Amino acid sequence: MTSYAYLGPAGTFTEAALLQVPAAEEAERVPATTVNAALDMVRTGRVKAAMVPIENSVEGGVSATLDAIANGAPLRIIREVLVPVSFVLVARPDVELADIRFVATHGHAWAQCRGWTEQNIPAAEYVPASSTAAAAHDLLDEGASHDAAICSPLVANRLGLRVLAKHIGDVADAVTRFILVSKPDTLPARTGADKTTLVIPLPEDHPGALMEILDQFAARGVNLSRIESRPTGLFLGDYFFSIDADGHVTDARVADALQGLHRISPGLRFLGSYARADRREYEVARHTSDEAFAAAREWVDSLRHSPTPDAEDIG
Amino acid sequence: MTSYAYLGPAGTFTEAALLQVPAAEEAERVPATTVNAALDMVRTGRVKAAMVPIENSVEGGVSATLDAIANGAPLRIIREVLVPVSFVLVARPDVELADIRFVATHGHAWAQCRGWTEQNIPAAEYVPASSTAAAAHDLLDEGASHDAAICSPLVANRLGLRVLAKHIGDVADAVTRFILVSKPDTLPARTGADKTTLVIPLPEDHPGALMEILDQFAARGVNLSRIESRPTGLFLGDYFFSIDADGHVTDARVADALQGLHRISPGLRFLGSYARADRREYEVARHTSDEAFAAAREWVDSLRHSPTPDAEDIG
Amino acid sequence: MTSYAYLGPAGTFTEAALLQVPAAEEAERVPATTVNAALDMVRTGRVKAAMVPIENSVEGGVSATLDAIANGAPLRIIREVLVPVSFVLVARPDVELADIRFVATHGHAWAQCRGWTEQNIPAAEYVPASSTAAAAHDLLDEGASHDAAICSPLVANRLGLRVLAKHIGDVADAVTRFILVSKPDTLPARTGADKTTLVIPLPEDHPGALMEILDQFAARGVNLSRIESRPTGLFLGDYFFSIDADGHVTDARVADALQGLHRISPGLRFLGSYARADRREYEVARHTSDEAFAAAREWVDSLRHSPTPDAEDIG
Amino acid sequence: MTSYAYLGPAGTFTEAALLQVPAAEEAERVPATTVNAALDMVRTGRVKAAMVPIENSVEGGVSATLDAIANGAPLRIIREVLVPVSFVLVARPDVELADIRFVATHGHAWAQCRGWTEQNIPAAEYVPASSTAAAAHDLLDEGASHDAAICSPLVANRLGLRVLAKHIGDVADAVTRFILVSKPDTLPARTGADKTTLVIPLPEDHPGALMEILDQFAARGVNLSRIESRPTGLFLGDYFFSIDADGHVTDARVADALQGLHRISPGLRFLGSYARADRREYEVARHTSDEAFAAAREWVDSLRHSPTPDAEDIG
Repeated sequence: MTSYAYLGPAGTFTEAALLQVPAAEEAERVPATTVNAALDMVRTGRVKAAMVPIENSVEGGVSATLDAIANGAPLRIIREVLVPVSFVLVARPDVELADIRFVATHGHAWAQCRGWTEQNIPAAEYVPASSTAAAAHDLLDEGASHDAAICSPLVANRLGLRVLAKHIGDVADAVTRFILVSKPDTLPARTGADKTTLVIPLPEDHPGALMEILDQFAARGVNLSRIESRPTGLFLGDYFFSIDADGHVTDARVADALQGLHRISPGLRFLGSYARADRREYEVARHTSDEAFAAAREWVDSLRHSPTPDAEDIG
Repeated sequence: MTSYAYLGPAGTFTEAALLQVPAAEEAERVPATTVNAALDMVRTGRVKAAMVPIENSVEGGVSATLDAIANGAPLRIIREVLVPVSFVLVARPDVELADIRFVATHGHAWAQCRGWTEQNIPAAEYVPASSTAAAAHDLLDEGASHDAAICSPLVANRLGLRVLAKHIGDVADAVTRFILVSKPDTLPARTGADKTTLVIPLPEDHPGALMEILDQFAARGVNLSRIESRPTGLFLGDYFFSIDADGHVTDARVADALQGLHRISPGLRFLGSYARADRREYEVARHTSDEAFAAAREWVDSLRHSPTPDAEDIG
Repeated sequence: MTSYAYLGPAGTFTEAALLQVPAAEEAERVPATTVNAALDMVRTGRVKAAMVPIENSVEGGVSATLDAIANGAPLRIIREVLVPVSFVLVARPDVELADIRFVATHGHAWAQCRGWTEQNIPAAEYVPASSTAAAAHDLLDEGASHDAAICSPLVANRLGLRVLAKHIGDVADAVTRFILVSKPDTLPARTGADKTTLVIPLPEDHPGALMEILDQFAARGVNLSRIESRPTGLFLGDYFFSIDADGHVTDARVADALQGLHRISPGLRFLGSYARADRREYEVARHTSDEAFAAAREWVDSLRHSPTPDAEDIG
Repeated sequence: MTSYAYLGPAGTFTEAALLQVPAAEEAERVPATTVNAALDMVRTGRVKAAMVPIENSVEGGVSATLDAIANGAPLRIIREVLVPVSFVLVARPDVELADIRFVATHGHAWAQCRGWTEQNIPAAEYVPASSTAAAAHDLLDEGASHDAAICSPLVANRLGLRVLAKHIGDVADAVTRFILVSKPDTLPARTGADKTTLVIPLPEDHPGALMEILDQFAARGVNLSRIESRPTGLFLGDYFFSIDADGHVTDARVADALQGLHRISPGLRFLGSYARADRREYEVARHTSDEAFAAAREWVDSLRHSPTPDAEDIG
């Protein structure tokens, strides 16, 4: 039976993302306790692919994922999924809003509901949990130190928890982006509305080097939809950049930009080309079309293949 | 009595950073539960200044701080402090390494000691805590759910906890950078080895806009020592950049770069010019020296102040 | 009596240009044999100003003028004049088109009429002359070696020469641009449709240095309407650039670009800001307006003038 | 018998340049009256190749050549030759320096000796000639209007003219660069010290478009040794650029730059890759070497050729 891993436990937004993949509905779905653990199941062949969060519209890039796919054995993103993020406040059966003293949830979720909690349960104290689902699950445990949790509607529903408030996130249309990651042996076909993800170590000092990298995209008319810096962990000020570019590696302009990047930063990592979740197509300038690239290549090839003149004629 | 806030509880690396400020040793030191809370004490006048972490050599920028100083009432960084990060494993009196089943600590600390823990206590489970100091403190509590904690040597020492292992961080010379933040009414004097911190919203789409911003520094020979992207939280792909540039706002080239930035991104925020903790001076190219700026200004001023010729002479 | 010099002899297109200046109509008009001679009359005070050609839409920049104003004692362009260039073929009284064997004119005029002459008088030989007017004038001389000349309608008319053909230039709407040059003691007032002319030595090697120069304009949104390279004469490959930029030195963005240029190429020369002959206004982006510059300057000034914090507070 | 054309008449510096080509010594050497005429002999097959001047260290680019090779049927530069420019003053047998009243020469030569003539024969008047050799030759003619000429030592020697002064050029080590031009059917082999000449029409408005062109070279580490603007002749402000770049079209970085240029300015013209006359080699950065280009291409090719994942797996 085919298996898929995801950042668990069951009921997280990540499982909701995985359920959008048709083949995953019927397959074994294996929760992992960390992003690294989920990706390692892919690397060892335990699962076919893993779903992990990469970016949240409120909290930003998910550092654990950005770092995990940037290091270790190579992986490949084959799909992205967008999941609207909606938080609910759940509590033990006998607890009312006014009674809540300890609220457990994941740090990111707590951050995203801070406005609502300060307004509605100002006296409540925060209890960190390793995930929103874990916080909810622990409510069922008699000895739990908290009396309420913030979690997804999915998990509240599954566990049959009492929902005291819905849509308590401070940003109404918050969304999280997830990626489906496999071994680096396949490449999704070009759809015309694609995205390419790269990890690029900054070669040397910053302003010049970063501009040189950005120029490799700009010079080929390749737009960037995400750019994030991450420390390499080696020393303060040593970064790599995690970048999403519009287009597919089989687009001539993307392939050309990648070649330019490989020359100036040979340690870069290609994390895949895959269909955009929003299916939004982008305009390609005439002079960066596949046709313009083919014409340019043919022209230069024709120049290079003339015979050599007689040596004495040119001295 | 003068008061300083810091990201608490007592015994965190942040308190260690605050203790490097001479005036803080004798002053009241107020622990805050969150970065936001610490900064709000500055904004309301409850304290004179607050010490908060901004960047870790292993984990990267501290999002909570980057976001908190980028929003709300303006603040000003007046000093930076570097603190070597060294982790120790502490346990209850009767617990040996082989017995440890639950280890509590802050998520960042856990991430930084993962190599050591996987090697030495592979069976131990992680219990999230809101800070390394809180995890250590809770060990004293009879009902604690964990039997060991990862914390700083400072807090282990203060609480008289038993240290099972020292220097367990995966990166030997990890360091965390802290900033001392006050109201925006003073500006530290130029020392010749200074740093200027800015928050710059990305005006529009990415590659062009970011290059335009970087070019404002490059065109004046101003080097960047840190550049980090952060989501604005408004929608996926909307960023601001948190940037440290070499130099002081009273350096002509920095002032000129700031003017250029203000024109293309008027919503930028100046977070201060202050002495570099490492006192490292940087070279300034002849043509970006204060003298070159003064000479250029004088030259252009002289051009602008000639009398106008008679109208009929030029028709 | 006020005097004006011009590149003579009488009847050249340059005199036609000078006659467009109201004050010159009543003034003494002194023909000069070379551009250098005309400009030296300005430098010595012999004349108030001199009219010389700088650019022709067919032949390009007038090297003699570009070099003469780039070297020697400083001068200032105070006006530009556009004159449509129309050539006529004139001949001795008894000569018909079919009889013409030798045609005298200036090399530039010959080049601009080559299409017509090859079609209509293919057997005619070219006799170089120092100006179109001189070629025409010499026809009146019995011993002249040529039997026809190419010159301006103005001189043909003045000398009463027989016109065999009109509008014989290969480009119907050719135009020559002339500049009125004075001592560098006045500056024409800003009109809102102005042009600034600069001479910029290339600091070092080419691609980087030229891009750095162009970037000084681009970074302030200053458009260039003319850019020409000229050898310095020192060694092969050593250039200066002669540049016309949109705008007046009292425009903030132009003044700022000039300051940037002065820093990277301190030997640059300001040749004046003056009204465009075509009165065409240009759009100014909001962020490069005088208001944006003023706002940016005020903002940075406000940052620089905060008091210094107490030394011990920051350690 | 093989034939070569050159800008005549016999005795010009151009003939001296042609004599440096071994095969030309024994061949028929055909003087042409204009650069265009010389190049047309190549185009029609009348001669195998033509030698014409392209650049003078004092006077700059030779407009006639720059324009002639930029237009009309395509041609190919196969060699460059540098000739030191040394001028002599020759006169009729009975004329002494003090007697000279009219000096004939080509305008460029006159310009290059102006310092000497103003000092030594200030009263002498300039008589324009179509070439230095023609001015010298005409001295032998009884009815000549001039009594002295400025020409090359070669022609003075051949005609047996009396030399009144040697080395009268204002710049001691002036040099002129000549090019040998053939049909576009051969390409000189790469020598490791090569030069590539291009004609690039400026696509649209100036600052942006020129920077975009220069960036195509800079992004591949290709240095430019010459850049000259020339008007297209269509309207004021419409230019093309004549550019010499270091390297050979078979160098990967040059080929890549040419492809980039072809995309943004498809009307560009390749005028040839040929050995530098000074045999000077240039450094190539590691990341712009042929090896770096090959490695980059292989890497991207490997990415593009993975199989496509099953459709249902990615949904």
